[in-house]
Amino acid sequence: MIAQLKIVLIGSGNVATQLGTALKKCGCNIVQVYSQNQKHAAALSRKLKSNCTAVIENLVQTADIYIVAVKDDALPSVLAQINFQPKLIVHTSGTTSIAVFKAKFKNYGVFYPLQTFSKSNKINFKEVPFFIEASHQKVYQQIESTARLLSEKVFPSNSEKRKALHVAAVFACNFTNHMYAIANEILRKENIPFEVLLPLIQETANKVKTASPKLMQTGPAVRNDKEVIAAHKKYLQDSIDYKKIYTLVSQSISDFTK
Amino acid sequence: MIAQLKIVLIGSGNVATQLGTALKKCGCNIVQVYSQNQKHAAALSRKLKSNCTAVIENLVQTADIYIVAVKDDALPSVLAQINFQPKLIVHTSGTTSIAVFKAKFKNYGVFYPLQTFSKSNKINFKEVPFFIEASHQKVYQQIESTARLLSEKVFPSNSEKRKALHVAAVFACNFTNHMYAIANEILRKENIPFEVLLPLIQETANKVKTASPKLMQTGPAVRNDKEVIAAHKKYLQDSIDYKKIYTLVSQSISDFTK
Repeated sequence: MIAQLKIVLIGSGNVATQLGTALKKCGCNIVQVYSQNQKHAAALSRKLKSNCTAVIENLVQTADIYIVAVKDDALPSVLAQINFQPKLIVHTSGTTSIAVFKAKFKNYGVFYPLQTFSKSNKINFKEVPFFIEASHQKVYQQIESTARLLSEKVFPSNSEKRKALHVAAVFACNFTNHMYAIANEILRKENIPFEVLLPLIQETANKVKTASPKLMQTGPAVRNDKEVIAAHKKYLQDSIDYKKIYTLVSQSISDFTK
Repeated sequence: MIAQLKIVLIGSGNVATQLGTALKKCGCNIVQVYSQNQKHAAALSRKLKSNCTAVIENLVQTADIYIVAVKDDALPSVLAQINFQPKLIVHTSGTTSIAVFKAKFKNYGVFYPLQTFSKSNKINFKEVPFFIEASHQKVYQQIESTARLLSEKVFPSNSEKRKALHVAAVFACNFTNHMYAIANEILRKENIPFEVLLPLIQETANKVKTASPKLMQTGPAVRNDKEVIAAHKKYLQDSIDYKKIYTLVSQSISDFTK
């Protein structure tokens, strides 16, 4: 029998919440949650039936894996405050290089789930691609086997490739979501419920399962329907921001699909 | 028993193909397909077991409904060439006003399906919202009952509201698809298959079924993760176009979610 993995979560945001919940479900023991915000640490630790702390010096030192899921800007300062040598420490960032660990830690790596996490949404982790990088081969295997508890899709990736994945994910997820948000704003002004767009949003996401987005493009920009584009820009004239995005993205579609 | 509706399709693109196929399935008789491109007219008419013509003067004059599904730029010139008074004529455009029919036609309207149509994708029409406008009440009822053959979601909409719907749809569908296309380009350069993004794309589309896109936003821009944003811009420095979109949309997310 494999001993139960003891995990410390450093961070209490969306990624920490979703990973912690999923790892617990897979039989891991979340022994502690650290967050500099005591309330957030307590809230997540209640969910995970773990201990919690807001004092980084009080981190449990005997866990098998320390998962650092904090925003990238905060990562170096959090790592600087860890005053012992953990068995294994990983971060979950798409963009920060594995080199962030190099000066100070012995066994380390990256454990990057390519998915959008909110605290409340239900994620099917089996489908989430994990991209793994490690300080050395033995550590790679440990991280990989942890990822395989959650997902069927675990891949090696160096820091450069992972950054490309993250940039691509920002376009495919965050920017896409912002397009939804702008659409929502436009409809709100006309008292039209956002729900009317849901079949369209779903179909747009479905279509790219079977053909490339370039082949699947529709609408006035790819048709070069100049009068429609002019009418839409006029419609958006009071929303300078949206008009700029409309113009730039339409031009980009036109250049791209020529 | 209701007499079988006789329909003439003017246009042979994605919308004409999908609407024609769906209306035929619902028991309508597609009597003719017109396209100025003889090959396109013939291809669609074979699918629909209808006649076809590339000569607009040869339009069958006895159909119940003429559905004009051509690009908006071409709509006025196509209408100008129709040299008889049809029983009922509609267009399918989101943006062109119903007024395009006014000078020449007696019974007319708009029949706008809010969906993205490719020739090959399978659409569940029951879910597609149709927005209807008509020259007068009796015509409205005819158009509505035709739309109800296809869909459970049929709404009245004047031309101004319809334009807003179309602009919103461009953001939620065409621009979203372009974000997928850019993501695909970024991954292609790194030899990473687009498929790794599919669970993320699906989840992004799913999340907005239960909460507003504003609430569901994730990623570096909404977190104000400055170092990640700087790293991504640097990564994109050779793709001026993508970098511009990255900068503008990130700023817009930041302004929007503040």
